[in-house]
Amino acid sequence: MGVADAVPLIDQHCHGVATADVDVREWLSEAKSARRHPFRSLLGVSLRRWCAPVLGMESHAPAEDYLWRRAELGWHEASRRLLAAAGVKHWFVDTGYAPGPVTTPGLLAELGGGTGHEVMRIESVAETLSLTAASPEALLNGILTQLHRAPVIAFKSVIGYRMGLRLPTVPPDRSAVVQAAGNWLRVKESRLTDPVLLTWLVHEAARAGYERGLPLQFHTGFGDSDLRLSEVDPVCLTDFIRAVPVPTVLLHCYPFHRNAAYLAHVFDHVYVDLGLTVPFVGPRAGAVLAEVLELAPFDSVLYSSDGNVLPELHFLGAALWRSYLGKLVDSWLADDVLTPADAERLVLGIGYANAARLHRL
Amino acid sequence: MGVADAVPLIDQHCHGVATADVDVREWLSEAKSARRHPFRSLLGVSLRRWCAPVLGMESHAPAEDYLWRRAELGWHEASRRLLAAAGVKHWFVDTGYAPGPVTTPGLLAELGGGTGHEVMRIESVAETLSLTAASPEALLNGILTQLHRAPVIAFKSVIGYRMGLRLPTVPPDRSAVVQAAGNWLRVKESRLTDPVLLTWLVHEAARAGYERGLPLQFHTGFGDSDLRLSEVDPVCLTDFIRAVPVPTVLLHCYPFHRNAAYLAHVFDHVYVDLGLTVPFVGPRAGAVLAEVLELAPFDSVLYSSDGNVLPELHFLGAALWRSYLGKLVDSWLADDVLTPADAERLVLGIGYANAARLHRL
Amino acid sequence: MGVADAVPLIDQHCHGVATADVDVREWLSEAKSARRHPFRSLLGVSLRRWCAPVLGMESHAPAEDYLWRRAELGWHEASRRLLAAAGVKHWFVDTGYAPGPVTTPGLLAELGGGTGHEVMRIESVAETLSLTAASPEALLNGILTQLHRAPVIAFKSVIGYRMGLRLPTVPPDRSAVVQAAGNWLRVKESRLTDPVLLTWLVHEAARAGYERGLPLQFHTGFGDSDLRLSEVDPVCLTDFIRAVPVPTVLLHCYPFHRNAAYLAHVFDHVYVDLGLTVPFVGPRAGAVLAEVLELAPFDSVLYSSDGNVLPELHFLGAALWRSYLGKLVDSWLADDVLTPADAERLVLGIGYANAARLHRL
Repeated sequence: MGVADAVPLIDQHCHGVATADVDVREWLSEAKSARRHPFRSLLGVSLRRWCAPVLGMESHAPAEDYLWRRAELGWHEASRRLLAAAGVKHWFVDTGYAPGPVTTPGLLAELGGGTGHEVMRIESVAETLSLTAASPEALLNGILTQLHRAPVIAFKSVIGYRMGLRLPTVPPDRSAVVQAAGNWLRVKESRLTDPVLLTWLVHEAARAGYERGLPLQFHTGFGDSDLRLSEVDPVCLTDFIRAVPVPTVLLHCYPFHRNAAYLAHVFDHVYVDLGLTVPFVGPRAGAVLAEVLELAPFDSVLYSSDGNVLPELHFLGAALWRSYLGKLVDSWLADDVLTPADAERLVLGIGYANAARLHRL
Repeated sequence: MGVADAVPLIDQHCHGVATADVDVREWLSEAKSARRHPFRSLLGVSLRRWCAPVLGMESHAPAEDYLWRRAELGWHEASRRLLAAAGVKHWFVDTGYAPGPVTTPGLLAELGGGTGHEVMRIESVAETLSLTAASPEALLNGILTQLHRAPVIAFKSVIGYRMGLRLPTVPPDRSAVVQAAGNWLRVKESRLTDPVLLTWLVHEAARAGYERGLPLQFHTGFGDSDLRLSEVDPVCLTDFIRAVPVPTVLLHCYPFHRNAAYLAHVFDHVYVDLGLTVPFVGPRAGAVLAEVLELAPFDSVLYSSDGNVLPELHFLGAALWRSYLGKLVDSWLADDVLTPADAERLVLGIGYANAARLHRL
Repeated sequence: MGVADAVPLIDQHCHGVATADVDVREWLSEAKSARRHPFRSLLGVSLRRWCAPVLGMESHAPAEDYLWRRAELGWHEASRRLLAAAGVKHWFVDTGYAPGPVTTPGLLAELGGGTGHEVMRIESVAETLSLTAASPEALLNGILTQLHRAPVIAFKSVIGYRMGLRLPTVPPDRSAVVQAAGNWLRVKESRLTDPVLLTWLVHEAARAGYERGLPLQFHTGFGDSDLRLSEVDPVCLTDFIRAVPVPTVLLHCYPFHRNAAYLAHVFDHVYVDLGLTVPFVGPRAGAVLAEVLELAPFDSVLYSSDGNVLPELHFLGAALWRSYLGKLVDSWLADDVLTPADAERLVLGIGYANAARLHRL
């Protein structure tokens, strides 16, 4: 058995799974359309290899058979099996993005075992409050109340999608923020894209997080076609990170994961996560993890799946991480790089202990 | 026999070979001068290892012996042997760059077997027409006629060398284009460097390509010392790609090949090619291919050699691709990542089927 | 025995070791503070694995035992053992950075065997002279005298830390330089950060280096938290390199080492060094070296440790380089990529011969 096979996990960044039967093929790519065959990718072949047995089929079952069997089981049973097979003890769930009906953190944990926790996507909170705010001041106060009182385990920002990650090191003036909030409420456009308001929001989340002991997660690196990759390189956050002491978690990071590891190396309050990356790159998960570990302190690396809509992704993240971090560490043991005790501490740290310490579980 | 050994190839981006005896040493580097020993590189050792047997010598023959033997055979016989050994069925030849007398697509195919096709280097077409154009309007019309009528299999742009890849998402105004064309004709400088004219040219090629079903290839990533590497990162093309639906082929890509793969992942009309990269990196071809496949859909990856002047490069591209993609896929088979049928489809897709479908062969 | 085990080395970029007992834990990271466990990193486990036996302990001794044993031996004996075990014949020592009492080049060589040479950190020379200069002209003349007369083996610039690496291709006007020097002397701030003066200094060092046959080293890539990683990508130096013919050595480079290798490929006067990187990445040294060799001519790659304060780093650089370049080359020999003679020349070149030729030893 591999060194990572039995480690309980904290999936420190994921989303709910669909509470309805959905077309798996639509969620196997970050592309908007899916003109290409969705199973012809490392994610696609990995899904057939790893998920099929969990649904009672042979490994590598043809895509059509997989889809048929999944529909036969239904979303509930398929989700139950896949989530349970992930071996996760704590699910940290971003509740601010739902492209359809999805599980709450509680229901996700009910299906998969363990405990669910909420990660607050701060842009979504602002957008929801904007729909009913009576005034700019009421909106800003409402956001601050949420940031300081909501029972969440972490904050998350997708500001990289809205204005990139070159954030000012100080928040904007109050008067500019009130004016920006007023403009936003007037145009009745729910999506928050104003850079003044976004910058204020991230700085306030950082302050609340610092006071409450909650980390601030940032989407960095690849995602869907909405972003410009060069603007979400985590090193764009360097000045912000240097100025702002909140524990900062860099999500996804790919293909800038070595840059993210450098930030975790030189800044003690920075953490690196490869959610999204690990399931997508399939058998290359070990190569990417190795690149991260070149500079990242062992205590700064966190596991997550970024699983979204499909429980296959929550499971694949865990299965690939166990398999390929295990192989990587085995190769280091064979090469006498570290001791078995070092290896166990490394694997347990990334899978569970680092996130437990950071989030005081 | 490896899974890739017998696949017929489409070399979807290459150049002619010299129709004269040339000094091999001058073409083994992208450096302008060659003060360094040209065979002391992964390309150099790979050439001795792979090409020497094709010319009837022992593998790894000393460089001096190789040069002697090649001169003894002469360019025609050396080219015939090396090109035939590549196992290529279709050669897509950029006919717009000739640093001396080189083969036409027809002669290349006559030497190497298979069929030759022309890739139109759009900047060269504009430059040729500029030598005889009677007026700016005549020049622009002449270019449009070529773009819409010339019997080519694809367009190619080297705009990365001229102004970088941060292209505007809309073409410039007609009046600005006419004025730029007039200025260009007046200065009698044949090299096209005007950004207005270059932008217009690429947008018109994209429009013609979209209408005619012809892909548009871009030089991206490394090349010779004329370019600034940071300006030819394929992600510089993001806005253009998002706005313009022509099938877009990212050539070379290195060291930004993971960025290129991301673009192919999120945009269904983007393709990734590692020509130039594969022959230069020698035994590292598998590592680079693996990095591309982390995110690139299997159907988006295309083989090419970017062979230029030396038939050694056309052959090495094929030999290294067969050997190292074969080893990569074998390692995945041994690790139960995919099935033999998946592996065969993957290899055939990259080597032949993806390009055949894209170019309607 | 591995192909690299017995190669004598030129450590072409390092610093002195502390001439006092220091806390090892403070020097195992580029972070300012060390809240994270300093031995939980690839550098930390590599130190325990490789250095412990040199101090007479079992490989992988616990960190606490290692610290105890090192204190017991004292800095002098620990340094003597570790430096001697590195197998270095020539030490090129940057004498312009001393965070405490450290060895001179002569004492370093006395402890480790071989010969010590001085590398002039040009910013430090300017800063020292600024403390006593009577006038701007006297300061500038004093710097020029040092650049043209000091008995050093190379120049080194840390301008990346001060203003990034996007250097102008021509030096500033004399009058602007005199004015900047005057301003600097007036403010009595010893740290040189003025971009005009820094640019002048680098250009003058390049000119003196070209005339004297001395290379100019640049800090590029990762270092401590003071820098912005995106501003020290070696490709930022492209225009400068194209314009200025002095032999240029790119230090560290990571994670932009493929970019550095590209520059060494297209410019015959550029060299690549992985000091700092190799000790920090531990068992990943082979992977990083392989990435560099993808494009870098074999004759352009130089060994160094960037060892600083701790003799462990000087030794680890050598031990990891021997072990992992050895494994890489062995894998290439097993794969028939090159001949044993090629392999020996490659390894000897990187470890010794390239630097010897460049520095006329």
